[in-house]
Amino acid sequence: MKARVHVTLKNGVLDPQGKAIQHTLESLGFDGVEDVRQGKFLELEIAETDPVAAEAAVKDMCEKLLANTVIENYDIELVE
Amino acid sequence: MKARVHVTLKNGVLDPQGKAIQHTLESLGFDGVEDVRQGKFLELEIAETDPVAAEAAVKDMCEKLLANTVIENYDIELVE
Repeated sequence: MKARVHVTLKNGVLDPQGKAIQHTLESLGFDGVEDVRQGKFLELEIAETDPVAAEAAVKDMCEKLLANTVIENYDIELVE
Repeated sequence: MKARVHVTLKNGVLDPQGKAIQHTLESLGFDGVEDVRQGKFLELEIAETDPVAAEAAVKDMCEKLLANTVIENYDIELVE
């Protein structure tokens, strides 16, 4: 089973990488870019076939390694 | 208008960061993690309100800055 995980900065947390991208886009001539936020996207291939157990396992992975829950949110989506 | 962009490594391109995550998950006791691929996830807030023009602009941004199209694929999704 495949899990798609988005890890994004919480609202209010400064995103210097996103700001750098925004300014670079402006300097390249792209007008009207009002905000850019960068996050991580992970695709995990896991052996577990039961969706409930798989989601619980991936949630545990997010809490322990994939996301810093002080400043980041995560979102899990199971595929197949 | 908001654009959500996924930038992922093309198939066959080695992903050392994904492998590092996979090995760390294993060392944390998570069994059955068969593969991990890490990509980038970007949320752009753009002033353009016409979906066709917005998608064309974001595609141009991907080609010029956001993705390295030699080794990466990108996927654009417009919201609202």
